[in-house]
Amino acid sequence: MHAPQLVERVRKGDRRALARAITLVENGAEELSAIMAGLAPGTGRARVVGFTGSPGVGKSTTTNAVVRAVRAKGLTVAVLAVDPSSPFTGGALLGDRVRMQEHATDPGVYIRSMANRGHLGGLSWATPHALRVLDAAGFDVILVETVGVGQAEVEIAGRADTTVVLSAPGMGDAVQAAKAGVLEVADVFAVNKADRDGARVTLRELRQMVAMKDRADDEWKPPIVMTVAAEDEGVAELWERVEEHFAHLEATGGLAVRRRARARDEVQAIVLERLRSRLGGLGEETGLDALAREVAEGRSDPYAAAEVLLEELGA
Amino acid sequence: MHAPQLVERVRKGDRRALARAITLVENGAEELSAIMAGLAPGTGRARVVGFTGSPGVGKSTTTNAVVRAVRAKGLTVAVLAVDPSSPFTGGALLGDRVRMQEHATDPGVYIRSMANRGHLGGLSWATPHALRVLDAAGFDVILVETVGVGQAEVEIAGRADTTVVLSAPGMGDAVQAAKAGVLEVADVFAVNKADRDGARVTLRELRQMVAMKDRADDEWKPPIVMTVAAEDEGVAELWERVEEHFAHLEATGGLAVRRRARARDEVQAIVLERLRSRLGGLGEETGLDALAREVAEGRSDPYAAAEVLLEELGA
Repeated sequence: MHAPQLVERVRKGDRRALARAITLVENGAEELSAIMAGLAPGTGRARVVGFTGSPGVGKSTTTNAVVRAVRAKGLTVAVLAVDPSSPFTGGALLGDRVRMQEHATDPGVYIRSMANRGHLGGLSWATPHALRVLDAAGFDVILVETVGVGQAEVEIAGRADTTVVLSAPGMGDAVQAAKAGVLEVADVFAVNKADRDGARVTLRELRQMVAMKDRADDEWKPPIVMTVAAEDEGVAELWERVEEHFAHLEATGGLAVRRRARARDEVQAIVLERLRSRLGGLGEETGLDALAREVAEGRSDPYAAAEVLLEELGA
Repeated sequence: MHAPQLVERVRKGDRRALARAITLVENGAEELSAIMAGLAPGTGRARVVGFTGSPGVGKSTTTNAVVRAVRAKGLTVAVLAVDPSSPFTGGALLGDRVRMQEHATDPGVYIRSMANRGHLGGLSWATPHALRVLDAAGFDVILVETVGVGQAEVEIAGRADTTVVLSAPGMGDAVQAAKAGVLEVADVFAVNKADRDGARVTLRELRQMVAMKDRADDEWKPPIVMTVAAEDEGVAELWERVEEHFAHLEATGGLAVRRRARARDEVQAIVLERLRSRLGGLGEETGLDALAREVAEGRSDPYAAAEVLLEELGA
């Protein structure tokens, strides 16, 4: 399929074309620049909602329940799972995978995992491209699921229009881990498995953390929702909070700011990837490998080597 | 403290100088290029061992026990914790933190956490710098602890001379998550909490995965060690396997290959950071923000915008 045909079919929401386009993204294919140029005019419509949290808090169960809530509103929805432990990516227990299948025959739902671990910056580079494809395909809502532990993964979740951070009771160190960077990106908190012991403690801890942050009067204060996603409890309320946050972004102009920031990251990632591949090329011909050897053996230092390469790049 | 003084004192292993140098790394300070140039001649001696695995497998307990085993061999050791959930970084339970303190008065042990989440690529950029400082300070062994979930974190662990991947029984989906990329970087496996139910199952799963991979006859086959790190069980054996792997690398020339790859990454990371900051600068003056706006609004696409910037960079 040539780029113009693929673009045409993606824009119609054709499933095979979507799958093909995202595979091209995963492979970093050359056609991408033509495809993205073709898709650009149709983008900017979808609401992008990130879901993140430590392994075990129930991200996939929650995502699945949210898909149901969004469909109940008559909206179409795509799920992009960049979490390696997600059942979407084939990483988790069979029970979860079966649960996902309830959406398999719904034409208003599309689920796709991203397996790209190929190169440094891989996820940061590939995720915005995949979002762009799903956006152009006309989905009303895109849910991005990432594990809330890695640096790249947290950054990806934080670049959504609305970022939902999930916790669960009884995960002492996981909640602590979350503090390290995940909480800063939260627009909405969900305490999942809220029927378990310790849910009130988790709620209280989150409340304290939310309260501690200084905010202007008109600034968004992240609400906290208690959910039992496996039983669909609290999920409609969670989605309401997400919609409120989106409305707040629209009303304050924050939406355009976030989307420009996302586009900025995307452009930078492409520029840096192009320069990186040029570096690799230079290396083979003119000596990145030789420079690396000198650095490894203590005969040079990485900054001096970097200066040599920058000169060779002409930058 | 000026760069030459700092370099002098780092090379003597002065604790305050070490702490200061790594803080400069975390802040991406300008002095770094002078400091790294000064430290270069003393580097390349330390053995770098990475420890990674999902949250909850006992990474910190194992690292702590390994510190003891390494000290018992008369070697000095530095720990660099880039795991946000590590007790070294203040993320975990008090009990763990107390346990670490056994090394607080040992002049042959230095423990440092990395809190840098500041910018995209932060950890990938900062970690090799911090390793370089600890290497120049003369430690025989450097243990790098990262959580085995994020893309950047797994890559960091995989760039060690020897990478130890930890599992624990009864962590179904965590072990599954590990499969997504962590296993590929393993030189040695440890099944921690091996006194718990399910340890044999985990061992069998790992054995199968190790067996499934095609290897040349002289290629290293990752051994699997059963440990109960909290009781010091199996830890001496774990360290023996690490030493055997290191000896194998030395004998086959693999060590130099790995270290050149690490240096290559390091040089590339510096080049890309410099270009990235130049991009930011260009943006303010000549229009990255304007380009990002066009992309966000669907009036341009990220590749077209990237081309404009590459031309402006002169690259």
